[in-house]
Amino acid sequence: MNSICELFKIKYPVIQAGMIWNSGWRLASAASNAGGLGLLGAGSMYPEVLRTHIQKCKATTSMPFGVNVPLLYPDIDKIISIIIEEGVKIVFTSAGNPATWTKILKDQNITVVHVVSNLKFALKAQEAGVDAIVGEGFEAGGHNGREETTTLCLIPLLREKIAVPIIAAGGIGSGAAMLAAMSLGAQGVQVGSRFAASIESSAHDNFKQAIIHAKDGDTQLMLKKLAPVRLLKNKFYEEVKAAEAACANEEELKKLLGHARAKHGMFEGDMEAGELEIGQISATIHSIKSVQEIMDEIIGEYEMLVKKGFESFR
Amino acid sequence: MNSICELFKIKYPVIQAGMIWNSGWRLASAASNAGGLGLLGAGSMYPEVLRTHIQKCKATTSMPFGVNVPLLYPDIDKIISIIIEEGVKIVFTSAGNPATWTKILKDQNITVVHVVSNLKFALKAQEAGVDAIVGEGFEAGGHNGREETTTLCLIPLLREKIAVPIIAAGGIGSGAAMLAAMSLGAQGVQVGSRFAASIESSAHDNFKQAIIHAKDGDTQLMLKKLAPVRLLKNKFYEEVKAAEAACANEEELKKLLGHARAKHGMFEGDMEAGELEIGQISATIHSIKSVQEIMDEIIGEYEMLVKKGFESFR
Repeated sequence: MNSICELFKIKYPVIQAGMIWNSGWRLASAASNAGGLGLLGAGSMYPEVLRTHIQKCKATTSMPFGVNVPLLYPDIDKIISIIIEEGVKIVFTSAGNPATWTKILKDQNITVVHVVSNLKFALKAQEAGVDAIVGEGFEAGGHNGREETTTLCLIPLLREKIAVPIIAAGGIGSGAAMLAAMSLGAQGVQVGSRFAASIESSAHDNFKQAIIHAKDGDTQLMLKKLAPVRLLKNKFYEEVKAAEAACANEEELKKLLGHARAKHGMFEGDMEAGELEIGQISATIHSIKSVQEIMDEIIGEYEMLVKKGFESFR
Repeated sequence: MNSICELFKIKYPVIQAGMIWNSGWRLASAASNAGGLGLLGAGSMYPEVLRTHIQKCKATTSMPFGVNVPLLYPDIDKIISIIIEEGVKIVFTSAGNPATWTKILKDQNITVVHVVSNLKFALKAQEAGVDAIVGEGFEAGGHNGREETTTLCLIPLLREKIAVPIIAAGGIGSGAAMLAAMSLGAQGVQVGSRFAASIESSAHDNFKQAIIHAKDGDTQLMLKKLAPVRLLKNKFYEEVKAAEAACANEEELKKLLGHARAKHGMFEGDMEAGELEIGQISATIHSIKSVQEIMDEIIGEYEMLVKKGFESFR
């Protein structure tokens, strides 16, 4: 049996990425009900808001679901307490040191997965005792690694040295890409952009429309002097680009970024001044569908390719 | 039958990338003799040097081989004349407009393939009448597209709109990656870095050693104000990085780059001052092998995975 399905007790090894401003209880419970693993994105929730989303998720699905927690979150202690109090069984950690929290979570019988973009942090996470690792490539939306290693190069690199199951993330929005990731040695996939553009995503419809109209080259990794983040090109992106071309320093970029731009863009729908985080694969997303339809398409294409098989040359 | 094997009359749909300073007649004829398609890299050859390499290639293999021609090459007319005079049957064009040369080559019954990094140029190349398209992703070594689209995202994007066969390039150095590319809809793969580190590569041994010792994050796409190029990190890279951090303009970067740095590094073995072009996949290349061994490994792994098949979830 597939190790990711076994680990999470799910039907399909497809994780819906926990994304800020996109993945509330509607998206997470829909992904879990469709046979994958839904994740709440705690990164854009105050602790008590997260508690409400966990409770609604429990009320709307009987299937396993989890929470994605950026470890650099200021209220991290409260977030972890709520996760434990509410009996969440799966936590994906990202953006921080897994050594601090993995043991605390595992002592509560919580399955822990850490998201990495390079081998060094994958080894650290494995040492910290995580149950699986998400390897996220350069093409992914939102925050991203400094090495800029793509999914196609990252997964084989992790596979060489990592013993725990690997979940591939970045550039995966179809059954064909799922099979590609499995070919490279991943046991599961994490899908972000495709679910950000789903009916159940909590993103503003303006953002969903922007995703399905994105073309080739419409995203770029920016703000590398702060924390690299893949942005959809808009007025704010142009301002960042101009500032970076003029050699703006960290302080100036922080000032330009300001406060709450991601919420303003993705959640409130300001397509000009908002910070819009999405992956390169958005260029091949052409319509907003339900989570069930998206899951059916991904699994349907994967199964079709697996059944068809590949030509032998010997 | 596989359309790339049919097009080139080869056994395996594996193209050895035509790379400057790495792919002379020894590498190209070895790749063709091993059942793939060998390509001479004309980009680092004076016209009469190319003629010699074509003649030696003809003398050392009876199998099909081709020439990679950067269309921006100053001596492009002479290069094309020599290719026609010497009866070369396959030409891969890159770095320039395929409209100018495709018809001239096709009128001589030459099979023409164009290398692209985005959909726009793929459509132009198809319109110009090319027989196949190489889609090269961000992770590839050397010169690279401004969109920074990775192979995992580029191939599905091309597959949607392009009718001619697609060859995936960038991040492919194993049978697993070959199968991943085929899953995405490519009919063949182009392998660069892996063959740059082969015994038959014309690169200096210092460069081959540098490739097999490269780690995660040891390459980066630089010189974006000139033409983006993926470099192995060394002293020259540090100089470029410092200049770019100090907001150097195009003129200053050109001056810093100077003349013949690629030759100086890859061919003459200066690992400090040389320009070293290699792909991200170098992090998973650990030894210098013969072309035959590399081909056996790639095809062997591909066949093993195809035979083993993939788990069904329905």
